[in-house]
Amino acid sequence: MNKPMTTPTNESTADFNAWASDMQMRMESVLAVNMPLASISPMRLHEAMRYSTLGGGKRVRALLAYAAGEFCSAELEKIDIPAAAVEIIHAFSLVHDDLPCMDDDDLRRGKPTTHKQYGNAMALLVGDALQSLAFQLISQDKLLNNATQKLQMLHILALASGSRGMAGGQAIDIESIGIPLTREELEQMHIHKTGALIRAAALLGAYSADEINEEKVKAIDHFAKAIGLAFQVVDDILDAEADTQTLGKTAGKDAKNNKSTYVTILGLSAAKQLASELHANAMAALSFYGREADLLRHLANFITQRSS
Amino acid sequence: MNKPMTTPTNESTADFNAWASDMQMRMESVLAVNMPLASISPMRLHEAMRYSTLGGGKRVRALLAYAAGEFCSAELEKIDIPAAAVEIIHAFSLVHDDLPCMDDDDLRRGKPTTHKQYGNAMALLVGDALQSLAFQLISQDKLLNNATQKLQMLHILALASGSRGMAGGQAIDIESIGIPLTREELEQMHIHKTGALIRAAALLGAYSADEINEEKVKAIDHFAKAIGLAFQVVDDILDAEADTQTLGKTAGKDAKNNKSTYVTILGLSAAKQLASELHANAMAALSFYGREADLLRHLANFITQRSS
Repeated sequence: MNKPMTTPTNESTADFNAWASDMQMRMESVLAVNMPLASISPMRLHEAMRYSTLGGGKRVRALLAYAAGEFCSAELEKIDIPAAAVEIIHAFSLVHDDLPCMDDDDLRRGKPTTHKQYGNAMALLVGDALQSLAFQLISQDKLLNNATQKLQMLHILALASGSRGMAGGQAIDIESIGIPLTREELEQMHIHKTGALIRAAALLGAYSADEINEEKVKAIDHFAKAIGLAFQVVDDILDAEADTQTLGKTAGKDAKNNKSTYVTILGLSAAKQLASELHANAMAALSFYGREADLLRHLANFITQRSS
Repeated sequence: MNKPMTTPTNESTADFNAWASDMQMRMESVLAVNMPLASISPMRLHEAMRYSTLGGGKRVRALLAYAAGEFCSAELEKIDIPAAAVEIIHAFSLVHDDLPCMDDDDLRRGKPTTHKQYGNAMALLVGDALQSLAFQLISQDKLLNNATQKLQMLHILALASGSRGMAGGQAIDIESIGIPLTREELEQMHIHKTGALIRAAALLGAYSADEINEEKVKAIDHFAKAIGLAFQVVDDILDAEADTQTLGKTAGKDAKNNKSTYVTILGLSAAKQLASELHANAMAALSFYGREADLLRHLANFITQRSS
């Protein structure tokens, strides 16, 4: 990455891929260190918490936190726990989302889902305990500068995961099964269900900096809103197009569950067009910035061009 | 309450009952104001969150927070949100605990349980969203003095509800169904399952004070440990003795679910003896204090002498 750019070159894409791979490994190790050991009582719960969180996933939220943090000149070490907290909230939501009373899914990240492996009751508790752990880790983080900073992060994370964020989006989702949604209703659902936590990931990265640059926080927020929605549109496209093996989770389940998606509402071609537009919106949010925003730009490409 | 006492008189018991009734009403109103309105989207989730939290319960945890706060000279207004946060965590745990994959209970506080009223998926999300809300409310509380104080509370609450606290106790509980526990194992389960949050309630009350008195915090912690366990022993006695109508929840369910309880392990008479001893331990933790600890003493009586 030698010069400012708005359209990353192939060379820098290779740099980005190396960076993303480093950060994914870094997050795996931050999570492994900060999750309770399976040798500590209650052992089966701790084992199931580690099973549900470690060993894979794209870590898009952590990558976003790291990229936003670097954009705001945060030290890498200070982004670790906030990024891990967002990944833990995400992992908890997947465990509960896969339960029989929700999506009833058997496969996640190429492995049996938590309830398939440990039973429904344990999976319920895994999600509950992971949620507590996310808040616990930020509240006790020794690297972050001051109490106000941590409190701000906890507030962002609580709002993003609660009834006006992720849980609210899931509630809209389960209420709309079998009911065709308008595009606006679908968008509202996704802004809450996945968008809120993706925004939180970016904001927690930005707030990991010792000094908050409000202009940059605003740019990151706009970027994250666009890319969060793009992420979901691409998810719908992949669910309609990909096979189960590539996806690492059950493909075609939206159709099976009779759910409205961007593909069912817009058709495949218009859904792809929308993903492009959202990608362009995300890029536009960074237009005042040079190479310091390149990680975020590459991430936008990574999210919209992924195949799983 | 005119003079210091260690054994409350009848006259002061009447005062306490009036205080407890005032505080229960106060908590109802704090919760009603701080829960999202059912008129705000997602409406059914918000309605179900209010259904699960408002309209009753003994509010033992809130009473404990208020009594501990008053003991530490905290202003009443400053205890409101911390106390409400603990009640919200408790309500979330009941909603999840009642689900078919856990205790599968139909009745709670004399009403249909949340999943009976709103379905399993919505009940799952109600619990998740309530947990977020508890952390959100403390993080945004305007009355508490400083960020460090709120952060300390969030840390206590996260630990108390997580895998080494409440969720961990529930995990031990579900793993032990059909397996007879020793008294020590049963105690370990309860110290986590109910004890941790009861301790958190008392500590959050204490930490609501502008200045922390470490000696008093220590006394409150000892008190809360003893009374938390007493609470559970009495719960087991009531489950074995009371009828469903008095209890407001299904009676005899421990036996039905083949669970070890203090009554199955010790017998009814020794369980009652144990409740008395724990009550005495709780009182002993306050022995250096005069009338300023009377609310806590009365609360110990209230908890061990309750009939529901």
